Amino acid sequence: MAEDAARPGEFDLIARYLRPLADDPAALNLTDDAAAFVPPPGQTLVLTKDMVAAGVHFFPDDPAVSIARKALRVNLSDLAAKGARPVGYLLGLALPGDWTPAWMADFAAGLAGDQSAYGIPLLGGDTVRAAGGLTLSITAIGAVPDGGMVRRAGARAGDALYVSGTIGDAALGLRLRLGTIDGTAAGEGKAHLLDRYLHPRPRLALAEAVRLHAHAALDVSDGLVGDLGHMLKASGVGARLEADRVPLSDAARALVGADPSALVSILSGGDDYEILAAVPPDRAAAFEAEAGAVGVPVTRIGTILAEPGPPQVVDGEGRIIHLARASHDHF
Amino acid sequence: MAEDAARPGEFDLIARYLRPLADDPAALNLTDDAAAFVPPPGQTLVLTKDMVAAGVHFFPDDPAVSIARKALRVNLSDLAAKGARPVGYLLGLALPGDWTPAWMADFAAGLAGDQSAYGIPLLGGDTVRAAGGLTLSITAIGAVPDGGMVRRAGARAGDALYVSGTIGDAALGLRLRLGTIDGTAAGEGKAHLLDRYLHPRPRLALAEAVRLHAHAALDVSDGLVGDLGHMLKASGVGARLEADRVPLSDAARALVGADPSALVSILSGGDDYEILAAVPPDRAAAFEAEAGAVGVPVTRIGTILAEPGPPQVVDGEGRIIHLARASHDHF
Repeated sequence: MAEDAARPGEFDLIARYLRPLADDPAALNLTDDAAAFVPPPGQTLVLTKDMVAAGVHFFPDDPAVSIARKALRVNLSDLAAKGARPVGYLLGLALPGDWTPAWMADFAAGLAGDQSAYGIPLLGGDTVRAAGGLTLSITAIGAVPDGGMVRRAGARAGDALYVSGTIGDAALGLRLRLGTIDGTAAGEGKAHLLDRYLHPRPRLALAEAVRLHAHAALDVSDGLVGDLGHMLKASGVGARLEADRVPLSDAARALVGADPSALVSILSGGDDYEILAAVPPDRAAAFEAEAGAVGVPVTRIGTILAEPGPPQVVDGEGRIIHLARASHDHF
Repeated sequence: MAEDAARPGEFDLIARYLRPLADDPAALNLTDDAAAFVPPPGQTLVLTKDMVAAGVHFFPDDPAVSIARKALRVNLSDLAAKGARPVGYLLGLALPGDWTPAWMADFAAGLAGDQSAYGIPLLGGDTVRAAGGLTLSITAIGAVPDGGMVRRAGARAGDALYVSGTIGDAALGLRLRLGTIDGTAAGEGKAHLLDRYLHPRPRLALAEAVRLHAHAALDVSDGLVGDLGHMLKASGVGARLEADRVPLSDAARALVGADPSALVSILSGGDDYEILAAVPPDRAAAFEAEAGAVGVPVTRIGTILAEPGPPQVVDGEGRIIHLARASHDHF
């Protein structure tokens, strides 16, 4: 019985670690087979599901609190890019047999902190034993006024391409983690890059501005050039992307100066979880102003073109840059 | 490139195998980051999420079509027990690296058949590489008229306890699969037991009768006695369960005759995916009639008691039967 006391079964695990996260009435205290969710009237629900798996999307020895944050935040990032406000999520947790109560307490603390920070309650889910590594599957639900979800499709010729924050930090953080790039040039900025890989920052503060002004948007998860390609394909247009306008952190800029391979990681590396949006020219000033008002930096990095095709990435003199690969495939 | 052609990446996999399953407008052809779901007005959404993992909930070498069915049906079973009609689902698929196009085609065919049989469209999801074994995480969405979700809580003293179909077949099928019981006595009925383990049969046809008449309900997934215990705990009541009224298939009855350990598997084994419902006496006739009208057998197996506590399992003479364990813990 000592082992049982140290590592509870499914019902005790739910009661001890997850029930405190589920104070929304729809969750029924996690005591039922399902949540009873009354949708907000006049709203379209935005449904997204992102899985993350140990050894694929995070390192098995990452802190539990960081794993929890990443699993939730990659979903919240999708909601933000669609212009939605979060309303709830369901958690699927496939746990290896060697989990510990301390790990689980940290994991729950990571979820609790983000629920509070981003205003999203736990509504339900499932916990099973994983035969392989830890796998998390979150379904996040957001809401927009009917017809208000911002799609990948919808970008039009002449739209300005904006991106939030800085690009490439997480990809460089991953390379530092893997030891495939020398981080000396980044100095103390290394910590920033490593943190950007570990902790996506969903741009929910920007969701309203995206919803009001963008023709099309998505979050940059597979790499800037690859994800722009998805938007262009869905919209039936092309785009010019001006590489030297892509916003970089000081640490990323330092690495590019020391190792040109860093630029490829920045443009195609993924895990940015910034928002890429196509904004019509007559809305650009309002979009920039509202982004500024909520404290999210946005930078114009290119223009939508009428001719369909993959992104044209150009340097400061307008010369085409050819990338060996356009995106990072988590699959 | 030969390997790429034989085993496509994530985007090709979605386009080839999953997009044909997603013809609901809310799914946006799986070309966006999220589904745009307009909830039916005046309805509460019933949200459930059940994960299944290779080596835990199914055998890794089970047919792909059967794995797909089990993953979807265990979720549909929850919707049925809550009195809900299915409206859509999201699929999370963590795939080991050695999947083949033939496996994936079979898996998609399993989903397609059930989508058609049970009237539920694919709305979205995610596909990732699994570092460990195959893991499936489905979020199913159902709908009930506002306030109509049937809960675990709500059973009252005097309610009749009903169960659909037959109990114990799947648990015995699993024991046959594991070789822990001699199936000779079941004769040709062995195939029935094995099939019940492989293919849950969600009782969606019974959902409306449950919604209209039951005080409380759940689906029997962890074992009849254990799941009844969950209902009693949530409802703050007790119950008498008459073991000799529990409906058995001919094959299960034959095994009980040959091996008394079969009875424990039947009462506590799990994977039945039948509905257990507490129905007030003045609704019992209507419940039985409506179940009969939709072709789902229901059997009265006990009575809710006022005194809170675990289920009292009694034999034909009213003597208490003590079970070594009350439920099967998938965790």
